[in-house]
Amino acid sequence: MSHNRFGHLFTVTTFGESHGPAIGCVIDGCPPGIEITAEEIKAELERRATGKSRHTSQRREKDDVQIVSGMFEGQTTGTAIAMVIENTDARSRDYNEIKSQFRPGHADYTYFKKYGVRDYRGGGRSSARETTMRVAAGAIARKWLNQEFGISIQGWLAQLGPHRVDAVREWSTVDENPFFCPDPSMVPVLENYMDALRKSGDSVGARVNVVARNVPAGLGAPVYGKLDADLAAAMMSINAAKGVEVGAGFDSVAQMGTEHRDEMTSDGFLSNHAGGVLGGISSGQDIVVSTAFKPTSSLRLPCRGLDVDGNEVEIVTKGRHDPCVGIRATPIVEAMMALVLMDHVLRHRAQMGCEAFV
Amino acid sequence: MSHNRFGHLFTVTTFGESHGPAIGCVIDGCPPGIEITAEEIKAELERRATGKSRHTSQRREKDDVQIVSGMFEGQTTGTAIAMVIENTDARSRDYNEIKSQFRPGHADYTYFKKYGVRDYRGGGRSSARETTMRVAAGAIARKWLNQEFGISIQGWLAQLGPHRVDAVREWSTVDENPFFCPDPSMVPVLENYMDALRKSGDSVGARVNVVARNVPAGLGAPVYGKLDADLAAAMMSINAAKGVEVGAGFDSVAQMGTEHRDEMTSDGFLSNHAGGVLGGISSGQDIVVSTAFKPTSSLRLPCRGLDVDGNEVEIVTKGRHDPCVGIRATPIVEAMMALVLMDHVLRHRAQMGCEAFV
Amino acid sequence: MSHNRFGHLFTVTTFGESHGPAIGCVIDGCPPGIEITAEEIKAELERRATGKSRHTSQRREKDDVQIVSGMFEGQTTGTAIAMVIENTDARSRDYNEIKSQFRPGHADYTYFKKYGVRDYRGGGRSSARETTMRVAAGAIARKWLNQEFGISIQGWLAQLGPHRVDAVREWSTVDENPFFCPDPSMVPVLENYMDALRKSGDSVGARVNVVARNVPAGLGAPVYGKLDADLAAAMMSINAAKGVEVGAGFDSVAQMGTEHRDEMTSDGFLSNHAGGVLGGISSGQDIVVSTAFKPTSSLRLPCRGLDVDGNEVEIVTKGRHDPCVGIRATPIVEAMMALVLMDHVLRHRAQMGCEAFV
Amino acid sequence: MSHNRFGHLFTVTTFGESHGPAIGCVIDGCPPGIEITAEEIKAELERRATGKSRHTSQRREKDDVQIVSGMFEGQTTGTAIAMVIENTDARSRDYNEIKSQFRPGHADYTYFKKYGVRDYRGGGRSSARETTMRVAAGAIARKWLNQEFGISIQGWLAQLGPHRVDAVREWSTVDENPFFCPDPSMVPVLENYMDALRKSGDSVGARVNVVARNVPAGLGAPVYGKLDADLAAAMMSINAAKGVEVGAGFDSVAQMGTEHRDEMTSDGFLSNHAGGVLGGISSGQDIVVSTAFKPTSSLRLPCRGLDVDGNEVEIVTKGRHDPCVGIRATPIVEAMMALVLMDHVLRHRAQMGCEAFV
Repeated sequence: MSHNRFGHLFTVTTFGESHGPAIGCVIDGCPPGIEITAEEIKAELERRATGKSRHTSQRREKDDVQIVSGMFEGQTTGTAIAMVIENTDARSRDYNEIKSQFRPGHADYTYFKKYGVRDYRGGGRSSARETTMRVAAGAIARKWLNQEFGISIQGWLAQLGPHRVDAVREWSTVDENPFFCPDPSMVPVLENYMDALRKSGDSVGARVNVVARNVPAGLGAPVYGKLDADLAAAMMSINAAKGVEVGAGFDSVAQMGTEHRDEMTSDGFLSNHAGGVLGGISSGQDIVVSTAFKPTSSLRLPCRGLDVDGNEVEIVTKGRHDPCVGIRATPIVEAMMALVLMDHVLRHRAQMGCEAFV
Repeated sequence: MSHNRFGHLFTVTTFGESHGPAIGCVIDGCPPGIEITAEEIKAELERRATGKSRHTSQRREKDDVQIVSGMFEGQTTGTAIAMVIENTDARSRDYNEIKSQFRPGHADYTYFKKYGVRDYRGGGRSSARETTMRVAAGAIARKWLNQEFGISIQGWLAQLGPHRVDAVREWSTVDENPFFCPDPSMVPVLENYMDALRKSGDSVGARVNVVARNVPAGLGAPVYGKLDADLAAAMMSINAAKGVEVGAGFDSVAQMGTEHRDEMTSDGFLSNHAGGVLGGISSGQDIVVSTAFKPTSSLRLPCRGLDVDGNEVEIVTKGRHDPCVGIRATPIVEAMMALVLMDHVLRHRAQMGCEAFV
Repeated sequence: MSHNRFGHLFTVTTFGESHGPAIGCVIDGCPPGIEITAEEIKAELERRATGKSRHTSQRREKDDVQIVSGMFEGQTTGTAIAMVIENTDARSRDYNEIKSQFRPGHADYTYFKKYGVRDYRGGGRSSARETTMRVAAGAIARKWLNQEFGISIQGWLAQLGPHRVDAVREWSTVDENPFFCPDPSMVPVLENYMDALRKSGDSVGARVNVVARNVPAGLGAPVYGKLDADLAAAMMSINAAKGVEVGAGFDSVAQMGTEHRDEMTSDGFLSNHAGGVLGGISSGQDIVVSTAFKPTSSLRLPCRGLDVDGNEVEIVTKGRHDPCVGIRATPIVEAMMALVLMDHVLRHRAQMGCEAFV
Repeated sequence: MSHNRFGHLFTVTTFGESHGPAIGCVIDGCPPGIEITAEEIKAELERRATGKSRHTSQRREKDDVQIVSGMFEGQTTGTAIAMVIENTDARSRDYNEIKSQFRPGHADYTYFKKYGVRDYRGGGRSSARETTMRVAAGAIARKWLNQEFGISIQGWLAQLGPHRVDAVREWSTVDENPFFCPDPSMVPVLENYMDALRKSGDSVGARVNVVARNVPAGLGAPVYGKLDADLAAAMMSINAAKGVEVGAGFDSVAQMGTEHRDEMTSDGFLSNHAGGVLGGISSGQDIVVSTAFKPTSSLRLPCRGLDVDGNEVEIVTKGRHDPCVGIRATPIVEAMMALVLMDHVLRHRAQMGCEAFV
């Protein structure tokens, strides 16, 4: 219910503005005895970092994470884990011109309407810089889920503007190109498209998929603690997200029941239209979620907007922005999947106890 | 976090199984002084009731709601409101044959895997009968939202299997046909389609949209208390939901930034691709949400499945089922919108106080 | 946070007014597989019932509890358990005279100041009738705690007005007298005292102690999830409670550190001034809590008060009241201990998993 | 429910160990527009700081608080406020000898039993160093409560070991002596007592009272959201607390109803045995709470204890400890009162809206 907190038992509270001194998070409820280093966390952070290719924002943050509490002699202690990352490459002067303007499609207007005050520098709290801490917290969850259950989580770019990535051709490719694209033949297409887009000054949306494998059956609960309901909230809470699907998603609308229902034999399920969740509870199949990201609204191409006094103004946004925010969304989507699963494992253990997962 | 509770400040806890003695809910945190009668609530319930047309399940429940607490002399008192509805038309014998089988596409399997025990009669707790209480609680929220802010909430069928309802032609039509279809010319098409479907024994999915009008700007909060994140969870928590979109939703993927960002003039926004939410906070525009519902999995057409001992069996489901669960989802989607908005109004007042909404 | 909900993972939401049609509760998060009958729950309820001796209120409720949901074939299913008890002996006419008056020492005034409306019949929601459902929910928790860990919970009257019960002489005595007094030699003293008190029309306070035995070490958590902090809230939430102590409690103030700290040998602790909790976490020793209850404020002896218009009035309370509410508090205090421990066992399992309690 | 989080709407999450690099907190849900500086917060922190007199621990921390987020141009923005204080005077070598021992009366044993791992340096997370952040967060709450409602909060030492402070003689005295003693004539007595105690190597308990004035009627809620229940949890969550009273507290046990009930005239209440809370809701009278603190368990006087392998050992604690932890508890108790009231004001506004407090 805290506005800046995610999760129920494995909870992550994040703080920090895009151009403030630092960003950070507090993880509460983490099991003790997890061995993890700042370097391992940093490795995850680098996957979402900006400035690594010409296709993302050119802001370059070192993302040196400091573990302030909750670790002792290399392992978690069960107490609150705090992590802090200093902001080192904020360039606030870019925002002077829009300090009294509302960028269309952006949180400027709604923050101001709600709070009557806003930190306009780099979007303040509404900046995607916040997602850094999701990835940091997610790194701990991922490690634990993998160690305890062998759960692996993998995201990929499924569509970039008009370009669909129809199939996952090579998983190994995902981390070898700046788009998290699983089809190497598509990479040059996307590079050309993005180069042209960047020159045009415009932006575009993207679709990012994520799968979690080896998730035990039984995670989730009726009727408001459903695993898929929490996944939907998790993904929709990411900056720029506009839609979430589980399994067949919106394709279910035109499916027949005989087609959609996943039949079972003693070898297991024959299909996975459900996306690994039935009645809000994991079935043991792969959990598959797809998220739609809108195009970046901060553009150097002028548009009509208002200033804080209600005057019509032409708005041009400077600063360093991603022409497609979805490109860097893959590690974030993976992190949110990890946080949801981690939370639900703890919730499941609470109710079901030692017999759980045996 | 409670598995059976929805909301943070205006909380709704539901209980009851499909074939138990009764279903009910407790609303906690409701403002005092709201005047509402059991009859008003029942009027909402009748919109989602089964057995009203040949296109839905033939189970006929009276849905006589009893207000057990929290009301005094016709108005809410600020204390816990409990409502109970007796189940009067449960026919449990239909389920004897599947008591030891897992219906594919159904929660049978996952409930059993999680809890080791399940009430198989009518799906037990996983039955859509639970949504009755969402509508009952939503009725109080809707009345209050309308009285205080003039907020109106309207849902409609946007697609039924292959049949898209491209436009809302006449709002008044929505409540005049069994499909909540806003285009009267489509109604005969849908009737014919459903008649054929019913005869075939198969089922089909649906898409249901909902709009909330006159929602004040400022509802929602960064970064995990986002209005759209809560809406996504709310809709995904409904039985059979597989996808949720806000505003342009998945169409955002292929949109350009110059197209998607909703420009503003002193007359207001020029478009509403955002669906009324920016940065997780309402903008004052219409809030528009779309939800995908999968086809019913309980079919009389046989399929391959397992029994509780792991043996392969042919499964045939008796009982009275909706050939398209999405048909009755419209009032449920409206109710969830009302519950989310109500909760967020209270959350907003908490933080912002008397200046809120002035 | 819900006003009418207790607990975090084993949550109990209660509803109902003293003179409404029924009272009830919903338990959410209960483990499946607990075998319990309505009769077992009723046996606990009878321990707190009024009308059993001349020393308590003469209202006679049958307290026939109906289990509405969450049970199937004699055991809990893991879904929401709802229980309802009809009110059958409410006598609302007694309250007509005070419907526009505020009884001093009572919630009348504060409910009215908060909500602007109140159900004056029998105190409405502020009535101790609500505690019936705490005992009902506590019965499930007690049974499970005992089965799983051998935890036993026992309360007793430690002081009634001026009469201290210095020692627990015979545990078996506690349930054999109307005072829950563990010293049979004190019973006649208390009977005489209460007879005189009742004739005088006045009321008196009481102190009730409770001990939980065989509680495993490790329950509770730093720093706001402390077991003793939750116990303090639990006891203080009971009607008429004014003080809570753990272990040595207020006697700690005048103790020296060398006296208070409980030394350990390989045979265990040498004393238990801590009351079984160190740093907010159970130590494996007996958990000992003491609660102070104020005297009943509803008296037939007149006093000065105000009516709802602010006029000074002489107030005389009719109705059937306990001359010492503390007498019936023992089963309630036991129930709250059970609910807190149950919740903390689940919370502990969530974080610590299968290794917990081994 | 988060172990390290306090509050429901105005939530404070603290982190950090006694000898880690830093301690800190995140405040979530704070209203925007509160003007406050790091210096104002530091002024509060200095009231609880150690090393200011010979009667407290000689650890000297600068407590320079850095506001990391949630403030912009001198005022709160409504987003998450993070504050961090570096630990600069930790002396971990003092703890080498007890790293494998459990100090009796201390959390060493229970943390180890729960988590299987502990940061033994300075007590790690169980250290009272954590309370620094309660005071820091409380400073924001106090300022706002005072500005909005004129609420003032004042604590004082009511008893130190055998020495009762029978009356508040001069409020101004409280901040002028190291004991927060409101009776100047008692100060030399306490100084002599503490000097002798320190030389003896022993420690002693204390009682600390706190009053909140000008609290509007209406804060709190039935039946588990009671103001006094939350106050009890808040005070009991402070290190070394063993008992909590509201108003007459344990004296209520021997009071008659005619004595305890606070009669009202048109001039207001004639007494305040209730301590400002009736039925869990504030009455508009002063809210009065008293808390018992046990004597420090860490002593240089040897005692019997165990090591982590279960061997009996003689335990002598080095390090710098307070001979009476209660002495510095006054600002902490005030802070907890402020946090509870702040949270309840927000909760009240949520349910009651703009009419609240008019």
